[in-house]
Amino acid sequence: MTASERVRAARGALTMVQAEPFNAEAPPEALTTDITPTELHYVRSNFALPEHDGLLHVGGTVANPLTLTLDDLRALPAVTRAVTLECAGNGRLGQTPLPEGEPWGRYAVSTARWTGARLCEVLDRAGCSADGVDVRFQGADHGPYHQHEDLRFVRSLDLVHAADPSAEILIAYDMNGEPLDADHGAPFRLIVPHWYGVASVKWLERIDVITTDYAGEFQVGHYMYEWPDRPHEPVTAMRVRARITDPAPGAELPAGTCTIRGKAWSGTGPVTKVELSFTGAGDWHPARLDIRQEPYAWQDWSFEWTVSRPGRYSLRARATDAAGNVQSEVPPWNRLGYGNNAVEVQHVDIR
Amino acid sequence: MTASERVRAARGALTMVQAEPFNAEAPPEALTTDITPTELHYVRSNFALPEHDGLLHVGGTVANPLTLTLDDLRALPAVTRAVTLECAGNGRLGQTPLPEGEPWGRYAVSTARWTGARLCEVLDRAGCSADGVDVRFQGADHGPYHQHEDLRFVRSLDLVHAADPSAEILIAYDMNGEPLDADHGAPFRLIVPHWYGVASVKWLERIDVITTDYAGEFQVGHYMYEWPDRPHEPVTAMRVRARITDPAPGAELPAGTCTIRGKAWSGTGPVTKVELSFTGAGDWHPARLDIRQEPYAWQDWSFEWTVSRPGRYSLRARATDAAGNVQSEVPPWNRLGYGNNAVEVQHVDIR
Repeated sequence: MTASERVRAARGALTMVQAEPFNAEAPPEALTTDITPTELHYVRSNFALPEHDGLLHVGGTVANPLTLTLDDLRALPAVTRAVTLECAGNGRLGQTPLPEGEPWGRYAVSTARWTGARLCEVLDRAGCSADGVDVRFQGADHGPYHQHEDLRFVRSLDLVHAADPSAEILIAYDMNGEPLDADHGAPFRLIVPHWYGVASVKWLERIDVITTDYAGEFQVGHYMYEWPDRPHEPVTAMRVRARITDPAPGAELPAGTCTIRGKAWSGTGPVTKVELSFTGAGDWHPARLDIRQEPYAWQDWSFEWTVSRPGRYSLRARATDAAGNVQSEVPPWNRLGYGNNAVEVQHVDIR
Repeated sequence: MTASERVRAARGALTMVQAEPFNAEAPPEALTTDITPTELHYVRSNFALPEHDGLLHVGGTVANPLTLTLDDLRALPAVTRAVTLECAGNGRLGQTPLPEGEPWGRYAVSTARWTGARLCEVLDRAGCSADGVDVRFQGADHGPYHQHEDLRFVRSLDLVHAADPSAEILIAYDMNGEPLDADHGAPFRLIVPHWYGVASVKWLERIDVITTDYAGEFQVGHYMYEWPDRPHEPVTAMRVRARITDPAPGAELPAGTCTIRGKAWSGTGPVTKVELSFTGAGDWHPARLDIRQEPYAWQDWSFEWTVSRPGRYSLRARATDAAGNVQSEVPPWNRLGYGNNAVEVQHVDIR
């Protein structure tokens, strides 16, 4: 197969949202496993697939500017982490009025096992100056974007965050044990645990430590919560969210006992509680949370549901995290439609 | 077949929402025809199927109390009208927070051809007194209901409305050319054009002209818009609404030109405009409205859509009626979840 045939084949199992640049959701069944197979992992791209020269430049206000190859990165201590990534626009179709932007349904979320070098270690080798404030990450991808004729994808993180060993930010080169493919940022990309996917810059080609807060289009233009009634805020950590994965929406089930299963995740603290409701009457019942195996990945929960009366039930799952964040029932509307973690409603029919 | 076997057979094609009392939505394909076949017409019941003794009593403050049989009603001049009925709770599942009440999706709406006697003619024969204010309609159905041990289904209309020949309110005994079946109110029921279905009392057994405003549970308790921020209002006429019927939600279509089709209806004036949008960017394009054949029935509209770029499109249809009412994009939330006529979003994938 040629490279472009490989790309097309890899995309076949996804639910396409946009053909070019390619954006696609995971199929619903991708949420039933702990690790999402690579070919089922959602894909978010702002621009066409870029060329990448295989080099990672580390510069800015550093003592030792570096130019690293894939082999250089592989020579550093490798870390593997299961990380749930979610697009900040996931659930945009559920917001009213419908915001601008890619019409994501509910499946722009996946969990892969990423292997790479620690960002903190690379920054340490480069030797950040004391006046460093922000770290800017530049992808190789670029193109027309709204008012910009040719914009490059660039995001930043606070230096204290980027250089924090406990944040475990990776420069990842393997995904689920294989080298990254083109759609997921080959040859290497950032993986920022707990944050919406926008922070995990794909096709990474430059890292620059800078002495001011970065204020590019993807930092302060897009990927901002433009709330109607309070100050705008940057899109950062994933908002707490639960998803029912079984039964499927609209399923028909016999009366009796069935196990309701799902996932829950949050970028602002471990999920500490998932509650289930079966009607609109405000009944909330605690689900059983599985012990979490991976600190950056979604976790399983389940609930034994006994129901005898036939009819339609409106199932909802609501998660709370350790920071006390809880899903609201009303989508948190903002102009560009980010961070919709509202409680989802799905009905099932008991026969 | 026994009577109960007939009832069960008639229900098989519907999407059940509640088994007992029986509530069920039309299947989506029922919205693609002008007239909904009886077996595909949605069913709303507050109580178990009642016994009915075949008599209609007309009394209260009238000069000539009447007791009418089905034959008496059939002996009066017959009127046949296609009437769109919609449950006031239609679309409740789309409101956030999820309100109490039957979890209706989007298909508690149908259009049948109803034949019956004019209510105004029956009231005229009974001779309403000058001090009449309200007309109370009592169904044979009753049972436990919230705090009530045994409540009967009773609704009222203003006398001026009930007695208005131009309102064309029917005491209907035929549905789509056949005698009413049990689920649709046999042997006769009220049909109130333009109003949400709650007004069209099934299994009608008593009509009383009264000298005060009726204030029963189904008039001032339930079927009230309990708005969070303004005075409560009774549920009356159907709110303006458009529905895309073709393509189906989630359909995959080839690039090119396709005809988008749908229905629109309103109880507050003829639909004068339907507009289509294909993205969240605020693009609205006028659809072609078919000439309306029936004053109380939904009407067809269509739009020739040419699209070349593959990807997901978020289709929306928005109707406006002659009174200037237009669908909002945000569901009009109220505690009991009535009248959700928000613009619906459905996506299609262009390949």
